[in-house]
Amino acid sequence: MKIDGKAYRTLWPGDDGASAVIIDQTKLPHRLETVALSSVEDAAHAIFTMQVRGAPLIGATAAYGLALALRRDASDAGLAAAIALLARQRPTAVNLAWALEEMRRTVAPLAPPARADAAFAKAAAIADDDVETCRRIGTHGALLIRAIAARKPAGARVNILTHCNAGWLACVDWGTATSPIYQAHDAGIPVHVWVDETRPRNQGASLTAYELARHGVAHTLIVDNAGGHLMQHGKVDLCIVGADRVAANGDVANKIGTYLKALAARDNGVPFYVALPYSTIDWTLASGRDIPIEERGADEVLTLQGQLADGSVTRIALAAPGSPAANPAFDVTPQRLVTGFITERGVTPANRDGLLALYPERRKSTA
Amino acid sequence: MKIDGKAYRTLWPGDDGASAVIIDQTKLPHRLETVALSSVEDAAHAIFTMQVRGAPLIGATAAYGLALALRRDASDAGLAAAIALLARQRPTAVNLAWALEEMRRTVAPLAPPARADAAFAKAAAIADDDVETCRRIGTHGALLIRAIAARKPAGARVNILTHCNAGWLACVDWGTATSPIYQAHDAGIPVHVWVDETRPRNQGASLTAYELARHGVAHTLIVDNAGGHLMQHGKVDLCIVGADRVAANGDVANKIGTYLKALAARDNGVPFYVALPYSTIDWTLASGRDIPIEERGADEVLTLQGQLADGSVTRIALAAPGSPAANPAFDVTPQRLVTGFITERGVTPANRDGLLALYPERRKSTA
Repeated sequence: MKIDGKAYRTLWPGDDGASAVIIDQTKLPHRLETVALSSVEDAAHAIFTMQVRGAPLIGATAAYGLALALRRDASDAGLAAAIALLARQRPTAVNLAWALEEMRRTVAPLAPPARADAAFAKAAAIADDDVETCRRIGTHGALLIRAIAARKPAGARVNILTHCNAGWLACVDWGTATSPIYQAHDAGIPVHVWVDETRPRNQGASLTAYELARHGVAHTLIVDNAGGHLMQHGKVDLCIVGADRVAANGDVANKIGTYLKALAARDNGVPFYVALPYSTIDWTLASGRDIPIEERGADEVLTLQGQLADGSVTRIALAAPGSPAANPAFDVTPQRLVTGFITERGVTPANRDGLLALYPERRKSTA
Repeated sequence: MKIDGKAYRTLWPGDDGASAVIIDQTKLPHRLETVALSSVEDAAHAIFTMQVRGAPLIGATAAYGLALALRRDASDAGLAAAIALLARQRPTAVNLAWALEEMRRTVAPLAPPARADAAFAKAAAIADDDVETCRRIGTHGALLIRAIAARKPAGARVNILTHCNAGWLACVDWGTATSPIYQAHDAGIPVHVWVDETRPRNQGASLTAYELARHGVAHTLIVDNAGGHLMQHGKVDLCIVGADRVAANGDVANKIGTYLKALAARDNGVPFYVALPYSTIDWTLASGRDIPIEERGADEVLTLQGQLADGSVTRIALAAPGSPAANPAFDVTPQRLVTGFITERGVTPANRDGLLALYPERRKSTA
């Protein structure tokens, strides 16, 4: 997608063939800065500190991180150590483990001298695949938006609420939840997005509002508390969120607070869709009960980064010293609250049968 | 309640008989500062800018504000103008209109020269009445906490979630939602409070965590997104919140986001209580549909105040310039989601019959 007219992805290979370049998302929206990752440690650090975040982008970054590791040590031991290092940086998004397994299957059969080049090529393929996958999610999802627009008076905006950032900044391009929005907007359907700020890390305020503004999509920032009230008053036609992991029964792990919006959507008859690529489905988990929920540091709750009037970026303390904080980073929305999934293969009910209808090749493995 | 060993109320008459003193709540938790209100304009400004906030405290401050107005102009016109000025500062909490009507009934029959002294005496009586009312709310509510403690293993903590600040800082003393907590704590029942930070103004982080810490009550600060996840995992035994206005059918207007927590409580079988004084009930409204919801400035969403490492307090911008924000300050929780009301007269079901059982003198007026 474009930032001020220039096309970007969130991640691309460096010209030297021995690095990958990312947009440092901890600096947005106040600074647009890129960082070159030159080692697997750089990639692990970028994932852990959330310079890159979003389930699909975490996977693609891990793929490049493994390629960087193999440039230095392409032995079996080096491969195993790099996979172990990368895999433990974030526990909830399954795309991380998925991408590492894709990479391992590609390079493990090769002789060590051939591994690094193959790994870079595979990482690039994973990134390109994510772009195409997200584009298709958008095509299917835009039909839902178009259908709602068709039921409204001509010219009336379709109001879509989203939580966190499941935008192109969470992927390589397009986004998952935002891809239908961009495609509807580009097709001339009037859309307006309610953007949850998404405490504690404010990915909605910092990233989703930023990317929608740069693309020219009408949007309004709200606090996470406001969505239920808006739904009660008929101001939300549709919710679309992303996912960090979807269990085989359709339960959805996503950014903390997603569950509350799903409850409000159900209480007010608002459709609640989850947009995801196939790599976010964890076919090994029977239900969301078994999804590991990352607990992050209290500092993310107790302090917040922003920009001072002089343009400098700083961090402020919100509470009085001495108050402890807890910071679960994700919650699980039961599939009973989800209207449907939007994937690269289409729209389907949020349950086991719905998933298997789109991915029939999984019938055997989950029978 | 006490701050570092010293007993405070949120509001008290000045020694000069021509002022009222408040704690400036916009400075908490980083500074404990008091402000003397010397005119009705000072009082109106304190209410509008939320130097004082919380439905009961807004009412008591308005009472003193009217007394200050009458020191300067005790004519019928002066009385009417002062009431009109104060009443329009905050639309949602009905305690403001209630207190002004109590004051008007007290002073209007008097000759103008007698009005100011009578008004100061009545304002003091309203404040004292709020203290006693809140103390009684706590006595009734503490029984609920004690009953939960009795069903848990000996010594196990009762986990209570609260939203916004319905603490002593929202009242004159004790608080509404926190009064049961303080009384249970003081009685030796082990309690622990999950404190919603309560964006956008962070009254949970700034005020509730502050006052619980000063009183020595165990608590943990969480973002507003986290409560549903905690309830799903059995970590909340009970929710208690305050109210800004309760309609005659039991619908509850309270700080934005209350509705989402009530939905999560219902979905997880967690009791959800609303603590309120009689002055928060609006017997004239058949349902919550008719409660006016205040829309506040976008700056409260787009910027946030906190403390820098050097101890100075500043305001930072959270989003990129150009993203608009919406800021509804309250939402309405339907009475079907409320387990019960805790008032100064006892605990009762959250519906018309429940309210009338506690306030039988209202039967005629709402028949």
